[in-house]
Amino acid sequence: MTADDARALDAADPLAAIRGLFTLPEGVIYLDGNSLGPLPRAVPAALDDAVARQWGERLIRSWNEGWIDAPQRVGAKLAGLIGARPDEVIVGDSTSANLYKLLVAALRLDPHRRTIVSELGNFPTDLHIAEGAAQAVPGARLHAVPRGEVEAALSGDTAVLLLTHIHYKTAERWDMDALTAAAHAAGAPVLWDLSHSAGAVAIDLNGSDADLAVGCGYKYLNGGPGAPAFLYVRQAHQERLHNPLSGWMGHAEPFDFADAYAPAPGMKRWLTGTPAILGLAALETSLDLWANVDRAQVWAKSAQLFDRLAAVGDVLKLTCVTPRDPARRGSHISFRHPHAYAVIQALIAHGVIGDFRAPDILRLGLTPLYLGHADVDRAGELLGEVLDSEPWRDPRYTQRQAVT
Amino acid sequence: MTADDARALDAADPLAAIRGLFTLPEGVIYLDGNSLGPLPRAVPAALDDAVARQWGERLIRSWNEGWIDAPQRVGAKLAGLIGARPDEVIVGDSTSANLYKLLVAALRLDPHRRTIVSELGNFPTDLHIAEGAAQAVPGARLHAVPRGEVEAALSGDTAVLLLTHIHYKTAERWDMDALTAAAHAAGAPVLWDLSHSAGAVAIDLNGSDADLAVGCGYKYLNGGPGAPAFLYVRQAHQERLHNPLSGWMGHAEPFDFADAYAPAPGMKRWLTGTPAILGLAALETSLDLWANVDRAQVWAKSAQLFDRLAAVGDVLKLTCVTPRDPARRGSHISFRHPHAYAVIQALIAHGVIGDFRAPDILRLGLTPLYLGHADVDRAGELLGEVLDSEPWRDPRYTQRQAVT
Repeated sequence: MTADDARALDAADPLAAIRGLFTLPEGVIYLDGNSLGPLPRAVPAALDDAVARQWGERLIRSWNEGWIDAPQRVGAKLAGLIGARPDEVIVGDSTSANLYKLLVAALRLDPHRRTIVSELGNFPTDLHIAEGAAQAVPGARLHAVPRGEVEAALSGDTAVLLLTHIHYKTAERWDMDALTAAAHAAGAPVLWDLSHSAGAVAIDLNGSDADLAVGCGYKYLNGGPGAPAFLYVRQAHQERLHNPLSGWMGHAEPFDFADAYAPAPGMKRWLTGTPAILGLAALETSLDLWANVDRAQVWAKSAQLFDRLAAVGDVLKLTCVTPRDPARRGSHISFRHPHAYAVIQALIAHGVIGDFRAPDILRLGLTPLYLGHADVDRAGELLGEVLDSEPWRDPRYTQRQAVT
Repeated sequence: MTADDARALDAADPLAAIRGLFTLPEGVIYLDGNSLGPLPRAVPAALDDAVARQWGERLIRSWNEGWIDAPQRVGAKLAGLIGARPDEVIVGDSTSANLYKLLVAALRLDPHRRTIVSELGNFPTDLHIAEGAAQAVPGARLHAVPRGEVEAALSGDTAVLLLTHIHYKTAERWDMDALTAAAHAAGAPVLWDLSHSAGAVAIDLNGSDADLAVGCGYKYLNGGPGAPAFLYVRQAHQERLHNPLSGWMGHAEPFDFADAYAPAPGMKRWLTGTPAILGLAALETSLDLWANVDRAQVWAKSAQLFDRLAAVGDVLKLTCVTPRDPARRGSHISFRHPHAYAVIQALIAHGVIGDFRAPDILRLGLTPLYLGHADVDRAGELLGEVLDSEPWRDPRYTQRQAVT
């Protein structure tokens, strides 16, 4: 893996032109698209239209000129990236709120099934929200077990299996087909959190027979900070499940202003309050970018970039906690290091933005839409230099910030 | 009330300069700021900074440069408008989601109190969400009664009294002091929905001894379509109440990534998912505008504009359903008319934007920050002309749109 080799790969990269669709700051190699995707160049103009024309000029009339349908329209655009039908996805609220909606709904399906099965070390909000959801249903509980014991934990008492498809720390990927089948064999639906998967790897919710899913809009989907999240319900379940956050926007006839709640048919019932139009506008524009992208090329390049950085990690004798098999991981690579926090801070100071995950993970996102092979080589070089400099002895790099 | 009189009042209006802080389309008299406030002129530049610099240039680093504290910072800016302390308000999610959080929390305070008392004809989402919240707590129920029977419905079984301070249809205002005291006399906390109050009338939550409140950011606060909502918890209750939507952003140490949920102290526990930064940026900028405004002048001018339009309604023999007493109403005026829908559609076509509320309410918002006395006179004239033209016989004005 030489510099010539990287140049040749970048010159032949069919995705090279896509980089130009993003704004990336000069002198920065951004290995954090798995935490906050960068700004697509089309977003500022789209938001300016949403603000100056739709809000400023059209005012309340814009509700009938595209706003009211935005959650479904943006959901339909996202559906293709996760193997769902356009009428199985809706966008709104946060991933956490959407998890709550679906977990409570799943717990209420069958009074004889009282347990949410999940994985210890799952992304914290999944477990925290599952605790909260269990409190909303008599007798319900969360049963989180080590990763290797998840399948064995499924039983006739399982109300729903809650898994994050790609682990936020290690990038380990669950076998969606196998775990969905295991949940079904136990008579339970599965809820996939796709926050680190959507836009990062091939996903086929329908093909996997998956029941429910959620995911965030601000990582590989580049929807902006705190972008609205998505929620998927397989069509066969749509009329059986009910949103516990039964707000007016999910009502069958919200503008009849009736006292009694009546859920809308289809996905609209998963709406709660008034949709966050500015966030939806940014996310919709970011999703439009995928129309120009051959997804198979993205997944293939992700594997190439991974192998390149994994090889650097080997040379630097770093402990890689991410599986090497592309089918068993996502699109980020994580190394364990006792001074991971200081290493990341020093790396950021040197122009390579990655992130730290407590207590000892150095996490680097590989996003093929705008990263080249030479970028990854340069990041690897700087990582080596940073490690040689022992940044954990430098107080500039050890002081903890509020968000790490 | 003559044209001269209107000109004199506008010339002497101490708020006249504030109008210049808003973008208002040419040829439109906007009587719908009670549904979607217009665009403050400072918002496009603030959003451009949030998008191009904070997201585009600073990327993930912005979380430590103002984003992570935005829900509390914006809440503190809002607190003064509702008579709360800066550390009693937080901004995020929708009004509906915030209602759910506080209602479930209130229902869990005392297992011997099982009833949410509210008003029939309350804004639908309040009742819909109350139904949903009751399902999350064993034995709980919603008891909604006619407006005149609310006080009598309070009892030892009341877990929380849920009222909308100013009615979305009629603009009737509850006496916050009296109803709060009545709830307390029954041993229950009160939850005020301030969606049609914040920025419209003087509110003193602390002075009224009010326990809980929510409200939206997109009406009189001009935060933009689907702006994040606010949530208030009186300081004395903050450690006793728990967020059922127990997401990672409300955790005491979110970046420790612990499996078990532990609520943050103070208002931070009411956060759920990742904050919607773009919506927060717009709302924060809109709230900054109030720093230049003498609120007493706003409330006084609201009363003047109301009297002016009420007098027109009298001349036109319209049935006004809004109380005349300024202390008993908000900042909109509603007329009942059998063809209210067609009248509003025709009025909009003539450049006066108001709105219809099913089945027969013609609702006109009076927002002193950017409306003058001459505007109100002109709107009254056009209303007269529209009524004379019998728009309910014109198919252009009778066809229902998705959002009314």
